[in-house]
Amino acid sequence: MNFTLEKSLEILERTPDVLITMLQDISADWTSVNEGDETWSVYDILGHLIHGEKTDWVPRADIILSENSDKKFKPFDRFAQFEDSKGKSLSQLLKEFKILRERNIEQLRSKKLTDKNLEDKGIHPAFGEVTLSQLLSTWVVHDLNHIAQISRVMAKQYKAAVGPWTAYLKILQS
Amino acid sequence: MNFTLEKSLEILERTPDVLITMLQDISADWTSVNEGDETWSVYDILGHLIHGEKTDWVPRADIILSENSDKKFKPFDRFAQFEDSKGKSLSQLLKEFKILRERNIEQLRSKKLTDKNLEDKGIHPAFGEVTLSQLLSTWVVHDLNHIAQISRVMAKQYKAAVGPWTAYLKILQS
Repeated sequence: MNFTLEKSLEILERTPDVLITMLQDISADWTSVNEGDETWSVYDILGHLIHGEKTDWVPRADIILSENSDKKFKPFDRFAQFEDSKGKSLSQLLKEFKILRERNIEQLRSKKLTDKNLEDKGIHPAFGEVTLSQLLSTWVVHDLNHIAQISRVMAKQYKAAVGPWTAYLKILQS
Repeated sequence: MNFTLEKSLEILERTPDVLITMLQDISADWTSVNEGDETWSVYDILGHLIHGEKTDWVPRADIILSENSDKKFKPFDRFAQFEDSKGKSLSQLLKEFKILRERNIEQLRSKKLTDKNLEDKGIHPAFGEVTLSQLLSTWVVHDLNHIAQISRVMAKQYKAAVGPWTAYLKILQS
């Protein structure tokens, strides 16, 4: 499937409400635990999504579209949420994510991107030239990736409880 | 985490609305395509979830709790949806799933399960004795498994569109 802005927005617009529907007022036993070792809890993942709204997707689109000749992206901090989320409830994170996402979508729409804009390029710190359409596609897949991850982290809390069924549940093996 | 009915219901009650929020009125380009070969589209997965509501979870709980000495479960048909969903829109499937799930949760609550009930057993066609709490835990994990699968099937439609970012997006490799 080729990138289109409208199909991308169909996903990007829904994600905050998907997360609110999944997580609002659920027991902390589902959201405060991780998959072991250095993995993330649902709470950590929400903080990561918030940091992406603030520093990744739209700020990088702005770099690509700017008049400035320096098109280098700032590296993304994958651990910022451990500081930024401190003292916030899960409910606050869900709300914050929704507000930031709405604002970012508004900004994206207001750019009235042309087909030519979508081919404009920025410089990613690890793999060099990337286009605006690749950045925006990645934003969409990144959302879906984290919805899947949240489902998996929660599922694993019942890994022992399912008994022999664990053999049939692929999500518990990954 | 140990099984509790209330924590299980927190997930089971939300799943229909999670799917409606993700999928209602979205372009068919996201929902009518699969991951290649014999894999399932989002549409197929919804049909599978509906078939589970009709023939798997609560009917198997009823077998476990019945007075009948034959505690064997009927094997689950993993392909029933290809026949049953024929002619139905995605929106109809979402609605049907929500109605069936609400009814099943009502039935489950009306059983007023005791701790002893949760240890009662049935006979699974592949791995023999299983308890009611294992069955109900599996119902929860099965929901989360399919939410993750739906996210993955959708994400893969942008596999080419993300360009070099594919290396960072684990969901595209699985």
